[in-house]
Amino acid sequence: MNSFDFLDNDRLKKQIEFLVEIDKMKNVFRRTVLIDKSRRENDAEHSWHFAMLALILNEYCSEEIDVSRVIKIAICHDLVEIYAGDTFAYDAEGHKDKEEREKKAAEKLFSILPEDEGEEIKELWLEFENKETPEARFANVCDRFQPLVHNFMTDGHTWKEGDVHAPQVLERMSVIKESAPEIWNAVTKIVSESVKRGILKP
Amino acid sequence: MNSFDFLDNDRLKKQIEFLVEIDKMKNVFRRTVLIDKSRRENDAEHSWHFAMLALILNEYCSEEIDVSRVIKIAICHDLVEIYAGDTFAYDAEGHKDKEEREKKAAEKLFSILPEDEGEEIKELWLEFENKETPEARFANVCDRFQPLVHNFMTDGHTWKEGDVHAPQVLERMSVIKESAPEIWNAVTKIVSESVKRGILKP
Repeated sequence: MNSFDFLDNDRLKKQIEFLVEIDKMKNVFRRTVLIDKSRRENDAEHSWHFAMLALILNEYCSEEIDVSRVIKIAICHDLVEIYAGDTFAYDAEGHKDKEEREKKAAEKLFSILPEDEGEEIKELWLEFENKETPEARFANVCDRFQPLVHNFMTDGHTWKEGDVHAPQVLERMSVIKESAPEIWNAVTKIVSESVKRGILKP
Repeated sequence: MNSFDFLDNDRLKKQIEFLVEIDKMKNVFRRTVLIDKSRRENDAEHSWHFAMLALILNEYCSEEIDVSRVIKIAICHDLVEIYAGDTFAYDAEGHKDKEEREKKAAEKLFSILPEDEGEEIKELWLEFENKETPEARFANVCDRFQPLVHNFMTDGHTWKEGDVHAPQVLERMSVIKESAPEIWNAVTKIVSESVKRGILKP
């Protein structure tokens, strides 16, 4: 293993080591497949795509938000999955210990950074999880809408794999309803169209 | 091909179609390999990693910057490669028509969006390319430092492949010198260490 011990700036060394460690995000695979169906999507790609949704769709947020904060949440929200793994959205069993697994992962990962920055990243992650700020709610809108579009574009790939039905999808998307009504309107239409096409069970 | 013609909001339809189109970033491969050497890195992953560098390393910028703008530049700077492809950093031939290819790609890609948003994304991309603002300069610092770290961690993978020598690397990294002197200090040390280890030609 290469190390950066030859650098004399200890703070920068820690930061570089963190940036090296998070390269592992590129090998944490989600259930969602790419739109060309060639393979599963990884967490690094998903985080980027989520950030793009925030940039492009923020005008639909019903609350006043700082878009930049949503984008920062986007790029940091899944970091803990480097150690905790991805938990499938419709996996009730996996969700039971998700919080515990991710908490441990956060301690391990964020402590690689200088303390102040570790705290900053941890706050972004917790803000997302707690959904208590307008930014966190809109971040959750983007995080959920992105795989919905992927599922629609891939003939319901992950829905079929997980034997998911329309009411479960609408339940999963429900955070969108208040935070972004116009996107919610599109969600209900995409779900109806998916049922009509037979790619999602009613 | 699935289309979103069943949506009644024409603006949102365009935005979703753009977000679907840019999924192709996940299949634009760079010369750089992942730190575990398992495969080449793609543009979506690189853009995410670049945004993380901006978030973590911005304290080293010698000029006052709006970090959020750097992050927005990060997630948008390579979008044109969906049509124009990645041009290897040390490929003089490929760089001759890079500007022309990317300009055409930008027109095609950004016109999928509503006009105002297409302009916004185009401005972020042009700002990065022109390096005339402090944010664009620091964005270039992150964009160049990230593959340097990858090359160091992968025993000079891409340097060897491209028969690259140390002075070329330093030349390529030179934007870092003024914009982030402390990172430049690390660059020179990483390059010296790489030559010492025999993973980069002197």
